[in-house]
Amino acid sequence: MKVAILGGTGSFGRGVAVRLAAAGVDDVVIGSRDAERAQAIAAEIGGRVSGATNDDAVRGADIAVLAVKADAALDTARDIAGALGVVPLFSVASALSFSKDGVRSDPDARAIAERIQDLVQAPVVAGLHTIAAANLEEAAPQEDALICGDDLEAKTLAIEISSRIVAGAALDAGPLASARALEGLTAVIVNVNKRYKAHAGVRITGVHHE
Amino acid sequence: MKVAILGGTGSFGRGVAVRLAAAGVDDVVIGSRDAERAQAIAAEIGGRVSGATNDDAVRGADIAVLAVKADAALDTARDIAGALGVVPLFSVASALSFSKDGVRSDPDARAIAERIQDLVQAPVVAGLHTIAAANLEEAAPQEDALICGDDLEAKTLAIEISSRIVAGAALDAGPLASARALEGLTAVIVNVNKRYKAHAGVRITGVHHE
Repeated sequence: MKVAILGGTGSFGRGVAVRLAAAGVDDVVIGSRDAERAQAIAAEIGGRVSGATNDDAVRGADIAVLAVKADAALDTARDIAGALGVVPLFSVASALSFSKDGVRSDPDARAIAERIQDLVQAPVVAGLHTIAAANLEEAAPQEDALICGDDLEAKTLAIEISSRIVAGAALDAGPLASARALEGLTAVIVNVNKRYKAHAGVRITGVHHE
Repeated sequence: MKVAILGGTGSFGRGVAVRLAAAGVDDVVIGSRDAERAQAIAAEIGGRVSGATNDDAVRGADIAVLAVKADAALDTARDIAGALGVVPLFSVASALSFSKDGVRSDPDARAIAERIQDLVQAPVVAGLHTIAAANLEEAAPQEDALICGDDLEAKTLAIEISSRIVAGAALDAGPLASARALEGLTAVIVNVNKRYKAHAGVRITGVHHE
């Protein structure tokens, strides 16, 4: 399996690359606008991780994780739409706005993932919103991953790679519209972290999944 | 402490009443448009639970849980605004729309709880969206409760009563705007339940709360 991590030089992308390589994914390519920077980060991680431009990274990939910061997600999706073709795009971004009262999710009614789907031909899936980059570095976090999407094949693939990222379960959270709640949940997690000086994550109880 | 449960004759309201009575809350009043029906349900539950009209239930209450179905939440809030005065109103509703692709949250960008805040003078808090009525009947569920609100005193009270409803933690999830994610999370839970034939709930990892 080849997994491209677009914008993979940031802390979340690096964390995903580290976990996938540790879980034995045999081809993990960090993408960046700057190929040299991508290669440098890949060399730091080591193992089967390589680096390339975003466009080169997605070619031949089974799935591409869009790991750029939220404010760059739409532009990057638009930029790589051509190279992506029909390779499933895995959106992990959540837009947050910070104020003195706490963190709020984006006031837009539609999720970033839904807006990305307007820009690319590829099926878009979304997930991993509740996993903090800091929780990915050392070991697979004892958290569950919630994944949503309208394309069943793409969603199954995203669930498969997510199950290698977390120590808990990777669960199907429904249609792409669930991304509104999942992206918003990042604001909830950030508020909980601030309130309790915590590194919060989510586990889903009561599910005996396959 | 006196807790009013408006629309408390439904399964969620009953579950909340059962749990609060079991946890030793000394005055739990089930409210309904039909006082006799409220009294009948209260008698079934027994203990310190009584029944009254919604208006009578909120008078002198420390907090009122708005436990009507989502499609009645705004109308009921409008109806009881006068009797409520400044008694904190605890919104637990989530609007869902069902389709063949799965359950979606309400397309409105603003949460039901935020729209309720427009209708009442009382401070509105929101939470318990991930707790299923069916999980409240037998024992306090092994789940956490996420509570949000802009009024700190009202939120503290809602957290206090929620901590008596769940066996897990009742956590401060930030400002009332967090209700968008929390209400949407109900759709996620319903989709997970459908997909895995489960009775899912949420636990937050990594928090060592007071």
